[in-house]
Amino acid sequence: MEIIILTIFPEMFTSPFSDSIIKRAQDKELVKITIIDIREFAQDRHRSVDDYSYGGGPGMVLKAEPIVEAVEYIQQGDSSWIDSKVIIASAQGKIFNQKIAKKLVAHERVIFICGRYEGIDERIPQLLKAEEISIGDYVLTGGEIPVMVILDTMVRLLPGVLGKEESIKNDSFYNGLLDYPHYTRPDRYRSFEVPQVLLSGDHKKIERWRKKQSLLRTMTRRPDLLFNREFTKEEIKIIDDLKNK
Amino acid sequence: MEIIILTIFPEMFTSPFSDSIIKRAQDKELVKITIIDIREFAQDRHRSVDDYSYGGGPGMVLKAEPIVEAVEYIQQGDSSWIDSKVIIASAQGKIFNQKIAKKLVAHERVIFICGRYEGIDERIPQLLKAEEISIGDYVLTGGEIPVMVILDTMVRLLPGVLGKEESIKNDSFYNGLLDYPHYTRPDRYRSFEVPQVLLSGDHKKIERWRKKQSLLRTMTRRPDLLFNREFTKEEIKIIDDLKNK
Repeated sequence: MEIIILTIFPEMFTSPFSDSIIKRAQDKELVKITIIDIREFAQDRHRSVDDYSYGGGPGMVLKAEPIVEAVEYIQQGDSSWIDSKVIIASAQGKIFNQKIAKKLVAHERVIFICGRYEGIDERIPQLLKAEEISIGDYVLTGGEIPVMVILDTMVRLLPGVLGKEESIKNDSFYNGLLDYPHYTRPDRYRSFEVPQVLLSGDHKKIERWRKKQSLLRTMTRRPDLLFNREFTKEEIKIIDDLKNK
Repeated sequence: MEIIILTIFPEMFTSPFSDSIIKRAQDKELVKITIIDIREFAQDRHRSVDDYSYGGGPGMVLKAEPIVEAVEYIQQGDSSWIDSKVIIASAQGKIFNQKIAKKLVAHERVIFICGRYEGIDERIPQLLKAEEISIGDYVLTGGEIPVMVILDTMVRLLPGVLGKEESIKNDSFYNGLLDYPHYTRPDRYRSFEVPQVLLSGDHKKIERWRKKQSLLRTMTRRPDLLFNREFTKEEIKIIDDLKNK
């Protein structure tokens, strides 16, 4: 998979990309990430990439020309990029989730534009037929950290990035429920003991306990995840058992 | 405000924190951020911070001892930290939003623990009375990038970090609606023109147009934001006008 990131802060990506799953994926040559400074496509001698908002108001707006022309340069300069997907990280987009991440990794080539949260010229998404994605309902300064979030999530889904075992874990983790509680050594720490079942060696019992914990935790912490969710037969059995307790 | 971040990847924060709003806030001495490597609190000679999950299964689990003892070291070593808020970035927490960010900046001192998404020992939140926060419904590798997200959002809300004008903008932006479209020069670009009203100089008309755009955009892109929202008189008037068109 090939990724290009357009940003006015290219240096921000240095350390997160050199010490994480993204580094590992790059080392394995499963993903190639190129970061381009939008300023290189600025057209005046001040290399300006933003300007005041028409109609007034505080905050600067990212100009259309440098970004549109950067994307065209990429897409027209190499035919393999012609149909690349263009994503803008912005608070105005649809909310990112695991499903969107799976769709994104189906693309061979993706261009990310790091918006400035104060605003980007509306003609950018229009001209580039770009999709706007938001990582959540909170206001950040720019799209740089959101693009790190999206890439970390995506890269984990690329075949070969995680070990086989980890991938299975990854899949099972997010089948619509929160994860069950984890414990590691020591089995007793400051009067808090690891639940006996986890030390029993009875794998069926452990599996069932974990499923129950996942269900109960989701019900109490994130009941919204259960709306419209279809429960498996096993889950219904666990819920029935809880009713009769 | 003082922030301490506990992480097993301290280097990840270098570049995002040296080129962003967070840098600006630190330079102005409005926030002080200290990053601590959890490994410094590991107790065996291998400095191990994780171990296998009791009950089996792939993925390593962050051990309780180094993290619990790091937090105790901070809170007991300096009395001003004794009541500091402890946050764990994890997929199991409540979903972060602007409201939570506002609550967090009311604290003088906050300790962030970067969880590993595969799992952390459940006794960590229990012993530390920590609050778990998730930035969204997607699976990341660790809590480092989520902590960057939370800090960027928080720091913007600290008085004095943004200029006065920017702050007002910031407040008005997130009163429950998506932002209106922005445009900057040139007024005509590749046959796409800036809406005439924005060039009119009629500030009342511009204000009204922007409000209408915000409402319409929220209705089409994020109708969920409108559930249980109280509309202002002005908004109701705009919606009524749209009905009669």
